[in-house]
Amino acid sequence: MSAEPPRYRRLADELVRLIHAGALRPGDRLPSVRQTQASRGCSAATVFQAYHRLESLGLVRAAERSGYFVAPVAAPSAVRLQEPQPVAVSELVFQLLGTGGHAVHAALGSAFPSPTLFPFDKLRSALSAGSRQLDPAELTQQLPGGHEGLRRQIALRYLRLGMSITPDEIVLTDGALEGLNLSLQLLTRPGDAVLVEAPCFYAALQALERLGLRAVEVPADPAEGADLGAMAELIERHSPKACWLMTSFQNPLGSLMPPDKKRALVELLGAQGIPLIEDDVYAELQHQGTPPLPAKAFSTRGEVLHAGSFAKTLAPGYRVGWVAAGRFAPALRRAKLSQSLSGSWPAQAAIAHYLEGVDYERHLRALRRALAAQQRALRSAVLAHFPPGTRVTPPQGGYFLWVELPPGHDSLALQSAALLEGISLAPGPLFSASGGFRNCLRLNSGQPWTPALAAAVARLGELIRSQTI
Amino acid sequence: MSAEPPRYRRLADELVRLIHAGALRPGDRLPSVRQTQASRGCSAATVFQAYHRLESLGLVRAAERSGYFVAPVAAPSAVRLQEPQPVAVSELVFQLLGTGGHAVHAALGSAFPSPTLFPFDKLRSALSAGSRQLDPAELTQQLPGGHEGLRRQIALRYLRLGMSITPDEIVLTDGALEGLNLSLQLLTRPGDAVLVEAPCFYAALQALERLGLRAVEVPADPAEGADLGAMAELIERHSPKACWLMTSFQNPLGSLMPPDKKRALVELLGAQGIPLIEDDVYAELQHQGTPPLPAKAFSTRGEVLHAGSFAKTLAPGYRVGWVAAGRFAPALRRAKLSQSLSGSWPAQAAIAHYLEGVDYERHLRALRRALAAQQRALRSAVLAHFPPGTRVTPPQGGYFLWVELPPGHDSLALQSAALLEGISLAPGPLFSASGGFRNCLRLNSGQPWTPALAAAVARLGELIRSQTI
Repeated sequence: MSAEPPRYRRLADELVRLIHAGALRPGDRLPSVRQTQASRGCSAATVFQAYHRLESLGLVRAAERSGYFVAPVAAPSAVRLQEPQPVAVSELVFQLLGTGGHAVHAALGSAFPSPTLFPFDKLRSALSAGSRQLDPAELTQQLPGGHEGLRRQIALRYLRLGMSITPDEIVLTDGALEGLNLSLQLLTRPGDAVLVEAPCFYAALQALERLGLRAVEVPADPAEGADLGAMAELIERHSPKACWLMTSFQNPLGSLMPPDKKRALVELLGAQGIPLIEDDVYAELQHQGTPPLPAKAFSTRGEVLHAGSFAKTLAPGYRVGWVAAGRFAPALRRAKLSQSLSGSWPAQAAIAHYLEGVDYERHLRALRRALAAQQRALRSAVLAHFPPGTRVTPPQGGYFLWVELPPGHDSLALQSAALLEGISLAPGPLFSASGGFRNCLRLNSGQPWTPALAAAVARLGELIRSQTI
Repeated sequence: MSAEPPRYRRLADELVRLIHAGALRPGDRLPSVRQTQASRGCSAATVFQAYHRLESLGLVRAAERSGYFVAPVAAPSAVRLQEPQPVAVSELVFQLLGTGGHAVHAALGSAFPSPTLFPFDKLRSALSAGSRQLDPAELTQQLPGGHEGLRRQIALRYLRLGMSITPDEIVLTDGALEGLNLSLQLLTRPGDAVLVEAPCFYAALQALERLGLRAVEVPADPAEGADLGAMAELIERHSPKACWLMTSFQNPLGSLMPPDKKRALVELLGAQGIPLIEDDVYAELQHQGTPPLPAKAFSTRGEVLHAGSFAKTLAPGYRVGWVAAGRFAPALRRAKLSQSLSGSWPAQAAIAHYLEGVDYERHLRALRRALAAQQRALRSAVLAHFPPGTRVTPPQGGYFLWVELPPGHDSLALQSAALLEGISLAPGPLFSASGGFRNCLRLNSGQPWTPALAAAVARLGELIRSQTI
C-alpha cells in the first residue's frame, strides 16, 4: 500500500521512540524548529509537520512563543499489561449509562450524534418507495443474509474503497452491534480469552460478560490505537481465540490506526490464526479527505469480520448494520437466522432505495463538516476551561473526545456532581474491564454547538477544579 | 378459571384413560353411540361430542356406517423418556430447511403462511403515517424496551384477554425469536438442562446448541401438548434451569393445552422455581372463537416469560415481536440493549399506528377463516391420498398439520424424493434433539388451496406408498 514514509513522518517516529524510551521526558523542550531544520538538513515545513504530528498524538504541547514541550504522561501510556479479566461490568455500565433520573440538558455523555444531523425527510420518502416495490415473496426468499439489493449497495461502497466484497459475503444484522455479538459467539467458547482494547467500547465488554469470556486488554494509544507490541506479547501469553477492536475513530479514544499499522495488525493476528472482529461503524465519519481503509483491506485469507452500520451515518433507529464476514460468512448467516431470522424488511428496503439515489454522498459531506466544526468548538472549550495538565486528543473523525484529566481526578465523582446539574458525561471506567481510566472521560461532540453547551463545559471545568485531589 | 368439566368431556377423559391403560387397544370398536347413551344415561349429542373429541385427539377413527375404532398407536404415544441430550442439530436443521437447490412449486415444508394473506397496503400507509409522527429525539430516548406506543398497544391486547400486563413489563424484540433466544441466555449457563417438547420447534434446539445447553425432551401429545406427568419425572431427575415450550397451536404438532393443563404446568414449574419461556406466536390464529389464554394468565409470581409476535398475524418481514417477561423484564431489557440496542424504529412505529386503527380485528377474522378452510382442504387431501394408518390431527389453530405415517416410513427419504419434484415438506427429525419422529412430517396449510397443491399432496401420497417398509 505505501512506499517509504515521508520525511516528516520518519522524524516524528524517531521522536516518539525517544519519548517512549524516556530519553525525552515530560516538560522537556524539543529542539526549536530552526535547530532541527539545521541539524537534519530538512525544511521548516517538515519539522512543523513532524511536531504537529507529535502534538496530535498528545505527546507534545505547543506553548505560545516558547516552543514545543513533552507533554505530561497520562493514563494510557502508563497502562500495564493486565492479566485476562473475567468480565463483570454490565451492571456498572448500565448504572453509568443511566442518568439516575436526572433531566439532562447537556448530553455530553451521549453515545449518539444529534438526530437533527440526519435526513429524516428523505428517509421517509425512501420508506414509502421501498415498500411500494415490495414483492411479498421476497420476505421469505431473501431471509438468509438479508435484503439482496441492500447487500449489493454495501458491496458497491466497498468497491469505492478498492475492496472486492461480494454481496454473499455480507450478512445484514440489526445494527452492527448484533453482528459483532453474533461474530463473537461464533468464534468462542465460554472461558476463552479475547483481545480487546483498553479503553474499549463498553458493549464489547458486555458481550464478553454474557458469553462468559475473559478480556485480554491491549493498551491503546489515543492517536494510533492498539499497541501491537503489547498485543504480540499478550497473544503469546494467553492464546486468545478472537480479537475485537476498532481500527478507525475508535470509541472512546477517537484513535485512527495508520494503514501500515492496520496491515501489521492483520499480519500479527493472521500468523496466529486469530480472527479479527473489526468494529468499523465510524469509518465514514472522517473529518477530511476520503474514508480510511479498514484493516480488512489488508486481509487475504478471509480472517477479518468487518462490521459496519448506517446507524451513525444515515438512519439512527433503523437498526441496519452488516458484517462482511470473510470465510465466516456462511456460519454467521446461519447464526443470524437462528438468533432473529432476519433484519426488519422496511428499514432495509428504505436504505437500499436511498443508496440507489444520489443524496448519500452530499449528506455525508455535510455531516462530516458539521462533526469537524463541532469537535473544534468542544475541544477549544475543554482546553479553555479544564485544569492545566488536561489532555484532549483531536480525533480525525467520529464525534467523541477523550479527555484525560491530571492524575488524581475522578470522573465517577464528576459524573455524579454533573448529573445533579443536568450535564451528562461518560466516565472512563465505563470503557475498562479492570476499572481503569478513572481520571478520563468521553465527551460527545455530535451535537450542534450552542451557548448552553459552552456553559455546560465551563461548569464541568469548575466542578473538576473543585475536586480535591 | 373453570368449573367442573362438561359431561362429554368427562366421558372422553375416561375413554382416554382406558386407551392409554391398554384396556381398549388399537382396532377395538367403541360401544355404539346408542349403547353408550343407554349405559351412561346421557344424550346422544354428549356421546357424539365425546367420540368426536377422541377423534380429534387422534385416538379413535370413525369408519363409515360401522362405528368408531381405536386408532393405531403412533410415534408420540410411544416416545420413551430420553436422557438429556447435548444438542447438535443445527447442521441437520439447515440441511433439512434447505431445498438442495431445487425449485419448489409446492412449499408444503414452509414455516410461513402465504404472504398474500397479509394487508401490505394498509401496512404501507402505516409506515408513512408512523414516520410522519417521528420525533427524532424518541430514537434514543425510547431505546430501553422499544417503542412506547407499541408497548402500550400490546398491553391493551393482553387486557382484552383479561390479563394485566404493563408496558414496562414488555420488551420489544426482533421477532419473537430474538426474545426467546435472549430469554434462554438470561436464564441459563452452559451445561444446564432445559425442558423442551418432543417434537419441538427446531429453533429452540438451535438456541440450546449455540448456548451449550442440554435438551430434556418432554413427550408431547398432538392434541394437548406436553405430558406433565413425564415432565414432573424429568424435573426430578435432571433439575432443568428453564422450560421452553408452546402451549397453544404448537409448532409442529398444532397441539393446544386446555386451560386447566396450562394452570397445572405453571404450578408444576413454579413449585420448582423453573421459569417458563412460553413461545406463543400462533396464539391469535385460533380457527374459531376467541384466542386461548396463555399459561402466563395463570402465573402469579412473574415466572413466565411470554413471547408474542406480529410476524405470523400481520407483518411478516417486519420482525417485530416481544416478550412480556414478568420479573425478568429489567434483565431482559438490558440483554436486548447489549445484544442489538433496539428494534427497528420504522417497523415498530408502523405497527403501533396500525394497531391504533380499527383494521386489525377484521384482518384477523379473515385470516382465521382462510387458515381454517385451507387446513380442512389439506387434511382431507392427506387422508384421501396417504396410506391407511396415517394419522393427522386437526389442530384448532395455526397453519401446520402434523402427519404420522405408519411405522417404518421414512420422512427424510420422502423429503429427498419430493424435492426432486419441486415439493417441499418438513421431515420429523427436524423437530427432535434425539433424531426421533422419522415417520412423521409437518405440512404447511398456510397457503391458499389450489389444484396444484392438491396434485402435490396426491403425488406425496404416491411417493409414500412406493417406499418399501
